[in-house]
Amino acid sequence: MSFDILSEKISAKGNPTVAGLDPRLDHLPPGLLAAHIAQKGETLEAAAAAVLEFNKGLVDALHDVIPAVKPQSAFYEALGPAGMVTLRETMVYATEHGLYVIADAKRGDIGSTAEAYAEAFLGETVIGGAVFRPFPADCLTVNAYLGSDGVLPFVAQCEQYGRAVFVLAKTSNPSSGEFQDRDVEGMPLYRRIAEKALQWGPHVGIVAGATYPSQLAEMRAAFPDMFFLIPGYGAQGGSAADLAPGFNADGGGAVVNSSRAITCAWKKTGLPYKDAARAEALRMRDELREVLRKCRGGCPQPPA
Amino acid sequence: MSFDILSEKISAKGNPTVAGLDPRLDHLPPGLLAAHIAQKGETLEAAAAAVLEFNKGLVDALHDVIPAVKPQSAFYEALGPAGMVTLRETMVYATEHGLYVIADAKRGDIGSTAEAYAEAFLGETVIGGAVFRPFPADCLTVNAYLGSDGVLPFVAQCEQYGRAVFVLAKTSNPSSGEFQDRDVEGMPLYRRIAEKALQWGPHVGIVAGATYPSQLAEMRAAFPDMFFLIPGYGAQGGSAADLAPGFNADGGGAVVNSSRAITCAWKKTGLPYKDAARAEALRMRDELREVLRKCRGGCPQPPA
Repeated sequence: MSFDILSEKISAKGNPTVAGLDPRLDHLPPGLLAAHIAQKGETLEAAAAAVLEFNKGLVDALHDVIPAVKPQSAFYEALGPAGMVTLRETMVYATEHGLYVIADAKRGDIGSTAEAYAEAFLGETVIGGAVFRPFPADCLTVNAYLGSDGVLPFVAQCEQYGRAVFVLAKTSNPSSGEFQDRDVEGMPLYRRIAEKALQWGPHVGIVAGATYPSQLAEMRAAFPDMFFLIPGYGAQGGSAADLAPGFNADGGGAVVNSSRAITCAWKKTGLPYKDAARAEALRMRDELREVLRKCRGGCPQPPA
Repeated sequence: MSFDILSEKISAKGNPTVAGLDPRLDHLPPGLLAAHIAQKGETLEAAAAAVLEFNKGLVDALHDVIPAVKPQSAFYEALGPAGMVTLRETMVYATEHGLYVIADAKRGDIGSTAEAYAEAFLGETVIGGAVFRPFPADCLTVNAYLGSDGVLPFVAQCEQYGRAVFVLAKTSNPSSGEFQDRDVEGMPLYRRIAEKALQWGPHVGIVAGATYPSQLAEMRAAFPDMFFLIPGYGAQGGSAADLAPGFNADGGGAVVNSSRAITCAWKKTGLPYKDAARAEALRMRDELREVLRKCRGGCPQPPA
């Protein structure tokens, strides 16, 4: 099963948290960007270097507490090519520190284009006799709107390299129901996509948001062995009780994302950002452990 | 209307073709990659420099024939950060040569993440007092699976900066029907998304593939004033007759993509790649002009 590597890291830390690395510049603590601007001027390169320092500090502070990080590609792309260097270096640094790297890029395209995305994030690019990993992630989020043509090229490279993908099923945002909840010949669209994800094989998990606990419970009941990425905890409003139904009967099979609550904890606490992030990650870990303890033998159903 | 800039360029060239710049390394003519490897070794940097030279040659050869180019982000991402430099420089060079730039990245995310993608491709990133355009496109393809939350942040920046987006409705690939054609409470999913696209306003067009001419005709009838990006012509199997129903009654309102048929024309003809690409672009232009001539006063319906 392709999510074994992630499951082992979750077990080793006793913590199903993935820390989202979604660095907006206003997430950086005071002075960090200014120090890089002093060296490189008001440039994308200065901002990208500041974000890399911030991310490395977070990895330093968190790597013995959490099993995984999830950099969100958008925030790196907004810093141009320099930002993509930071995305790459963040992945390398996290991997060196034993963390599982989920690239949250929600890619989706067909044929040779999907292959190229898969090479970029999961596989390898070959130049003559040399082999490179452009953006070395362990796992990628994928948008399946284009159907099997848009997912199977990713799956092929997951099988080849031992990686995994999470397909978007029920996302955590307020308008996710506009299309995802619509009835598609007797079944909501999110469920149809999840059914396909099951067919696409063990390298494919789904995204199911903590903000929709009844759908999360429905999908766990329908797919007891599937791996779930659960966003929406914390800043988006999902509670530990909301996400409990996402775990399997063994208290596994899921990883829970928290981004701002961890990376911007310094704003609430006044602590240095690394200390604040670590404190929040420990608090969240303990809260999730309590949820998992109650899950043994079957998770609680969502609050009515 | 937000597609005015594109429409004007199409009128000026008398040609609704967008050339897809989807550079796989095996699309490069013999010797081009080797020349850069001789300078930079077998590196992603050498490959990215070769692709940039290839793209600039294509822009040189095509800029007075076609109105627009559509770089596909995946192929640049597969070359790592150096590839993203090439993506950016390709956009800059195409813009300098008067071409409209459609970034085919099929992005889709929510809230501040969608804002960051929009900044990356359509808007601006501000560092202190300095303003940058990370990947300076005029237009972006967007995947709307996440609902309005995933599209409106792009629309906001389109309105601010005079740009546009194409939302995926009915894509050109064989499995596009798996989800897109399913009946959603009396209407196919692709049509539901197109209906939303209309509500999202005049900066939003749709992608509708030439490989599904009856759906293309259906959507043109339903959305006479919407702008369409039509992929699937040429290498994917769509003919000029197939895509005719995508134009409006004035022979406008659509742009037709061709990628490999133009950029890899050298493989079929034995001509130098620039000459081969230009010859194919002229041939395609003339074929589309013939289709548009027949469209005056109402396009032909798709072949039965």
